[in-house]
Amino acid sequence: MTDIRATLRTRLDAAVGSAQVLTAESDVVPYVTDWRGRFHGRALAVVRPGNTDEVAAVVRACAELRVPIVTQGGNTGQCGGATPDSQGNAIVLSLTRMNRVREVDPDNATLTAEAGVPLAMVQQAADENGMLFPLSLAAEGSCTIGGNLSTNAGGTAVLRFGNARELVLGIEVVLADGRIWNGLRGLRKDNTGYDLKQLFIGAEGTLGVVTAAVLKLFPAPRVRVTAFAAVPDVGASVRLLRELRATLGDRITGFELMSALSIALSRKHHPALPDPFPGHPWYALIQADDSAIDSPLAAQVEQALAAAIESGTALDATIAQSGDQANALWALRENMAEAQRREGPNVKHDISLPVSAIPRFVDEARGALSAAFPGIRFVNFGHLGDGNLHYNLAGPEGTDQAAFLANAPRVNRIVHDLVTALGGSISAEHGIGQLKREELTRYKSATELDLMRVVKSALDPAGIFNPGKVL
Amino acid sequence: MTDIRATLRTRLDAAVGSAQVLTAESDVVPYVTDWRGRFHGRALAVVRPGNTDEVAAVVRACAELRVPIVTQGGNTGQCGGATPDSQGNAIVLSLTRMNRVREVDPDNATLTAEAGVPLAMVQQAADENGMLFPLSLAAEGSCTIGGNLSTNAGGTAVLRFGNARELVLGIEVVLADGRIWNGLRGLRKDNTGYDLKQLFIGAEGTLGVVTAAVLKLFPAPRVRVTAFAAVPDVGASVRLLRELRATLGDRITGFELMSALSIALSRKHHPALPDPFPGHPWYALIQADDSAIDSPLAAQVEQALAAAIESGTALDATIAQSGDQANALWALRENMAEAQRREGPNVKHDISLPVSAIPRFVDEARGALSAAFPGIRFVNFGHLGDGNLHYNLAGPEGTDQAAFLANAPRVNRIVHDLVTALGGSISAEHGIGQLKREELTRYKSATELDLMRVVKSALDPAGIFNPGKVL
Repeated sequence: MTDIRATLRTRLDAAVGSAQVLTAESDVVPYVTDWRGRFHGRALAVVRPGNTDEVAAVVRACAELRVPIVTQGGNTGQCGGATPDSQGNAIVLSLTRMNRVREVDPDNATLTAEAGVPLAMVQQAADENGMLFPLSLAAEGSCTIGGNLSTNAGGTAVLRFGNARELVLGIEVVLADGRIWNGLRGLRKDNTGYDLKQLFIGAEGTLGVVTAAVLKLFPAPRVRVTAFAAVPDVGASVRLLRELRATLGDRITGFELMSALSIALSRKHHPALPDPFPGHPWYALIQADDSAIDSPLAAQVEQALAAAIESGTALDATIAQSGDQANALWALRENMAEAQRREGPNVKHDISLPVSAIPRFVDEARGALSAAFPGIRFVNFGHLGDGNLHYNLAGPEGTDQAAFLANAPRVNRIVHDLVTALGGSISAEHGIGQLKREELTRYKSATELDLMRVVKSALDPAGIFNPGKVL
Repeated sequence: MTDIRATLRTRLDAAVGSAQVLTAESDVVPYVTDWRGRFHGRALAVVRPGNTDEVAAVVRACAELRVPIVTQGGNTGQCGGATPDSQGNAIVLSLTRMNRVREVDPDNATLTAEAGVPLAMVQQAADENGMLFPLSLAAEGSCTIGGNLSTNAGGTAVLRFGNARELVLGIEVVLADGRIWNGLRGLRKDNTGYDLKQLFIGAEGTLGVVTAAVLKLFPAPRVRVTAFAAVPDVGASVRLLRELRATLGDRITGFELMSALSIALSRKHHPALPDPFPGHPWYALIQADDSAIDSPLAAQVEQALAAAIESGTALDATIAQSGDQANALWALRENMAEAQRREGPNVKHDISLPVSAIPRFVDEARGALSAAFPGIRFVNFGHLGDGNLHYNLAGPEGTDQAAFLANAPRVNRIVHDLVTALGGSISAEHGIGQLKREELTRYKSATELDLMRVVKSALDPAGIFNPGKVL
C-alpha cells in the first residue's frame, strides 16, 4: 500500500501540481463528508485539476494503479453519491477549479461551461446575454453544473423545461482509460449514432468524468404571474393542473401542491407569511411565465382560475399583485423543508408517480400508514406538475420524533411498495448514490439491473469510477 | 443452411403462426427494398409478430440460430437502415401488426403506443383527447412510431418540441437474448439509474427491438400564425430568428430558410403558388403557435416583424390572413423536394450546424463548390431554427444533370469537411443506416466510434441486430 501511495502521489503531483493534491487530514475532511453530515468517508487524497487534460492525467494514473475515483462538484448531493466510502483507498476528484464559462453563443442559444461552474453562475451568464438557463434549485449558489448533470438534477422548472438531461446538447467526458471524449456539439439535430451523452448524464460519476457541457438557453421571461388556489382534494388539483395547461399552454412553469398541514407548519415557523384561504385541505401554488411582448398573462391566468372556481375544481384563488406578494407565496412553499427540520426529524421520500396516479397514491398511502402507525402525521408537498412528491412523515404529535425514525424501514417499505405498484419511482430527482442502493436492488427489475451492469462493465471494466454508488 | 432454414421456419411458425412468416418471393419483395428503390436486399423470411411476447420468441429463435434480425416499421427510412443486405441470411422483423394505442392518460399527458402504430394515428389519438403529439414529418401517414423512435426522427416542430427522443418517457424493448425490458414508465422525473431508453432510441435497430413507448402529449394550439419575410442574407435570417424568439418566446415553432432559387424552382413546378416579395435573395417562412386562450398572437407577430423591418433585419414581411394563405406559403416550402426531383437528380445533404455557424457555412461552401464545379447550382432550404439545412446541389444549367451525380463523392467531401470543421453533423435527422456508414467512420472521432462499438458489443454481443448498419 505504501508503494502505491508513493507512486500515486508522484503521478498526481505530476498531473496537477503538488499544491492541488490535498492529503492533510484537515484539508481532506470537507471533501469526505456530505453537506448534511450523514455520510462520512476516507480518501487517499483530494485532487483538484484545473483543466480537462489534468483530469485525464489523473484518471490515467488511477486506472493504472487501480485507485478508485470519486468525482465531486459542489458537494451538495442528497444521497451520498459524491462521498467516498470508509475504505480510504479512493481519491476525491474535485472539479471546482474548472469554473470557466468557455463560450456563450446567443445566435445558437447555447452556453459552454466547465463542470465546476456553479449553477448560479451559469444562470447569470445566460441572464447577462438576455436569455434564460432554466435549471433552478435550492443549492444553486454552491452546486456545480457538472454535479447537476451527473445527477440529472430536477428542481422547480421541470414542468416546462425538463430535467437537467434535457437542457444539454453536448458534453466532454474523461473515460475510464483516461481518454477524452469530446462530445461538445451545439446541435439541435444530430443523428450520427448512439446518444452517448445520455449515458453519462445521471450516472452519478460511475461511468466517466463529465468535464464540460454545451447547455441550451431559452428566451428570458418578460412577465411572471404567481397564483394561489384552494382545492377540495388532490384529484381536483390534478384537474386544475390539466385545465390550466389546456388554457395557458406551457406558460405554466410551476405547479406545487401543498397540504393544509404543510402550510400550517411553514406559517408556524414563519408567522409573517400569508394564509390567503384558511380552512381548506389542499392548496396549489401556480407559477406562469411568458417571454412574449405585450402578454396579457395576468388576465389569462385570472380567466382560467375564474373558470376553475365556476366548475368547482378550485374553491378560491388569488393572484399576487406585486413581486413582494409573489415572493411571500413562494416563501410558504420554500420554507417547508426548514420548518419541518425545526419540528424535529421525519421520514422523507423523494418519489414520483404518473400525475394521474397521485390522488390514488395519497389516499392509499394515508390509509396504509395510518393503520400501521396510528397518529402518524403527513407533511405532503411537492412538484405536482412533475408527479414529484416530497412525501414526509412525522410521528404522532407530542411523541418523541427522533424515536419515530426507528420506524423508517417499515415506513419506506409501505411507501415504496405502493409507489412501485402504481408505476412510480423511488427517487424522482435526488438520485441513488449510496443512500438508495439497496432499495434500488429491491425495486428495479432484474432485467434492468442487468442492463445497467452490462453498461457499467463495458464503460468502466475495472470499476474505478465511484464504486459502491448506484449499482 | 437448409437445416438452419428448416429449424428456423419451425421456430418462427411456433412463435408467430405460419401465416405471419412470409417466404414467397412476391410477399418478401416489398420488405427488402426501401421506398425510394435505392437499396435492395434479400431475406430468409419476413416475420410479422402481433405482440411483444411474439417478438421475444422470434428474437430468442434467431439468437440461438445466429440469424440476423432487421427490424422494420413503415419502411420509409432515408438511409436504408431497415433494408437487409444482399447476403440473404437475415429475417425482416416487421412490426406493423403491433398497431394498438394501448392507453391515453390525459391527466398525465401521456399516450402509450405499440411500435407499429402509424405516426398519424398517434397524432390523431392525441387530438381526440384535446392534446398535441408534436412530431410531424412528410411520411407521417405510413411511418410508424417505432421507426420514428429508432431513427430519432426530427421533422417540422423540433425548434419548439425537440426530436423524437425528447418526446418519450419510457419504452419497452426486446433485448438480444430475447428478454423483454419493460421500461414503460410515464414519469417526468425518475433518477433511478442510467437512462437506458436513450440508448435504444436512435440506434436504428442495432441494439434491441423497441416494441412500445410512453409518449409525451402537449396542450393543443388554439391559434396558428404563418408569416413570410424577405431577408438580405443568411446572417440576417439568423438575427431574425433570434429577435423573434426574444419577443415571442417559444410560440415560434417553425423557422424555415429558403433561397430565391429554391422558391423559383418550387413555383416553376407549381405556378399557382404565391411569390410575395420577388427579387430578394433569401426568405424565411415563420410559424407561430399559441395554445392559450385569448392570445393576441397575430398582433404580436406583426409587431415583431415590423420591428425587424425597422431595424433592417427583414426587408419585407407578410402574415397569412387565412388558412388557405398559410397553406399556400407552406406549400412553397413543402413542394421543394418534389420540384427538385422534377428538375433532375442532384446531390443531397442532410446536415446540421450551430445556428450561429450557418452564415459562414453557406458562404464558404458556395465559394469552395463554385471553384471546384463552375456553374454549380445551390438549392438551399431547411429548418434554420434547428440548424438543419437540406443542402442540395445541381449541375450547371443546361448540362446533363444525371452526369453531375458522378461528382457526388467530391461534392460530399467538400460539404462534409466544412460541416465538420464548423462543428456540424453529416446527418441531422435521417440517420446513418447503410448510406452513411463509411462517411461516419471518416468523420466521427476514433474515441466516439470506440464508445459506440463498446456499447454495441455489450448489448448485442453476437451482433444479431441489424448488422452492417450504423457501425
